[in-house]
Amino acid sequence: MNRKELISNIKKKKSFLCVGLDTELKKIPKHLLETEDPVFEFNKSIISATIDYTVAYKPNIAFYESMGISGWISLQKTINYLEPYRGEVFLIADAKRGDIGNTSAQYARTFFDKKVSGFDFNAVTVAPYMGQDSVSPFLEHHDKWVILLALTSNKGAGDFQLLKINEPGDKSLYQKVLEISSKWGTPENMMFVVGATQAEMLGEIRKIVPDHFLLVPGVGAQGGSLQQVADFGMNKDCGLLVNASRSILYASPEKDFAEKARSEAKILKEEMEAQLRKFSVI
Amino acid sequence: MNRKELISNIKKKKSFLCVGLDTELKKIPKHLLETEDPVFEFNKSIISATIDYTVAYKPNIAFYESMGISGWISLQKTINYLEPYRGEVFLIADAKRGDIGNTSAQYARTFFDKKVSGFDFNAVTVAPYMGQDSVSPFLEHHDKWVILLALTSNKGAGDFQLLKINEPGDKSLYQKVLEISSKWGTPENMMFVVGATQAEMLGEIRKIVPDHFLLVPGVGAQGGSLQQVADFGMNKDCGLLVNASRSILYASPEKDFAEKARSEAKILKEEMEAQLRKFSVI
Repeated sequence: MNRKELISNIKKKKSFLCVGLDTELKKIPKHLLETEDPVFEFNKSIISATIDYTVAYKPNIAFYESMGISGWISLQKTINYLEPYRGEVFLIADAKRGDIGNTSAQYARTFFDKKVSGFDFNAVTVAPYMGQDSVSPFLEHHDKWVILLALTSNKGAGDFQLLKINEPGDKSLYQKVLEISSKWGTPENMMFVVGATQAEMLGEIRKIVPDHFLLVPGVGAQGGSLQQVADFGMNKDCGLLVNASRSILYASPEKDFAEKARSEAKILKEEMEAQLRKFSVI
Repeated sequence: MNRKELISNIKKKKSFLCVGLDTELKKIPKHLLETEDPVFEFNKSIISATIDYTVAYKPNIAFYESMGISGWISLQKTINYLEPYRGEVFLIADAKRGDIGNTSAQYARTFFDKKVSGFDFNAVTVAPYMGQDSVSPFLEHHDKWVILLALTSNKGAGDFQLLKINEPGDKSLYQKVLEISSKWGTPENMMFVVGATQAEMLGEIRKIVPDHFLLVPGVGAQGGSLQQVADFGMNKDCGLLVNASRSILYASPEKDFAEKARSEAKILKEEMEAQLRKFSVI
């Protein structure tokens, strides 16, 4: 999916919601545990319940690989289930990968090359620490995206991302990451992760990357505000994918989980529609 | 495996060699492609050929996961094959993971919790960008290790790791990473990745982390020198694991690949033994 198609989906669905599929056996409704593949059954229900309000899904790869081979099978079935919807949803492998060039090339194959690995995501999240040659192998895949970590939503973001760099302009590391890495690709194949808990910094970030899409986790369970994110981060093409995981997935621990997930997604979609109108994107 | 046992193995084998299992279908000898699981067949031969000279093996997870489910099966079989040798070799999952706390906890289960994922590595490589709460879930596993990226051996290391930080002492980011993160664990459960191509910086690194083990890739194919690494990086307990991957694995593309791999490993082991004697570790 290219940038134009993504923007078109956002306008059509009046939503910039990404649903994070952080599916955890111990959190899903008990009755699903009796099925052959509880993780897949859960994902299927969540996807069916939320697809009308969603422009992206983001399986968190850790939750699948930690279940060993059965987890990878559940993930594969989830991606296959999404096949008929590929025109309307952007698929992000939230994997936080990144290594030296020949190894990043392998990670790129994992998530982008269906013939080799079975997977065909639109994007993968990548950590910036190892620099350009750890990122560029992902960018060599046509119509695929890198979503690079810039300013994350966790407490540890302060440890290194906010360190001040010794050069004029009082810049933090995350700003240098944006400044340098935004030259490795274009707004057509790169996005950045910016946590919603850092919404006030979105204004600064928009000065460095006015056109790039930002993937914003941390709305909901992690405490960020959607309105603030839009105020500081929205651009004329929307330029935002806001992720919600736990608040949607685990809206109810009972048999009505899908229905409740749909209600949660609908509430977010309506807030998003209001923001899209406010900033004249639609 | 704890630190004491690791040091004991180094002294016993007179080697601090780690063999990186970056096994790639297109690089292994052609005759193996006719077997049921060429990756496992190759790894088995490499392990048998090198075990006398090796204190650690480091499967590069990218090379397995890029083959989809069959890759994870080959990796599982490789780890199972190493079971009888677990007392004498340290097993590193070179995965470069790291995410917010609840997600890093899942990655830790992937590589450390045999009951959940089938894997029981001794250590996993982790990227530091997301800070303490992205690293500490790995440290909660008893007798398991984090090997944190500090200064890597690739060209992109210069993009961010060498940025100067705005505080007294003219420190680079990688030095701050060492300084801050070394307080998250101890030399009993943390190591650092330091590329051999940066050997002259090992002296500076030893001032910050005199006691920690360093995992040093980049000797051989990437051009680093073993002698320089020992000169600048060895401490009284050795304190080094030096990794070689391609120079051993692909020493020959023919049927004699295992024999040639053994010869390469033996050469490195002999150089290592000389360094261990020179610095009176043995």
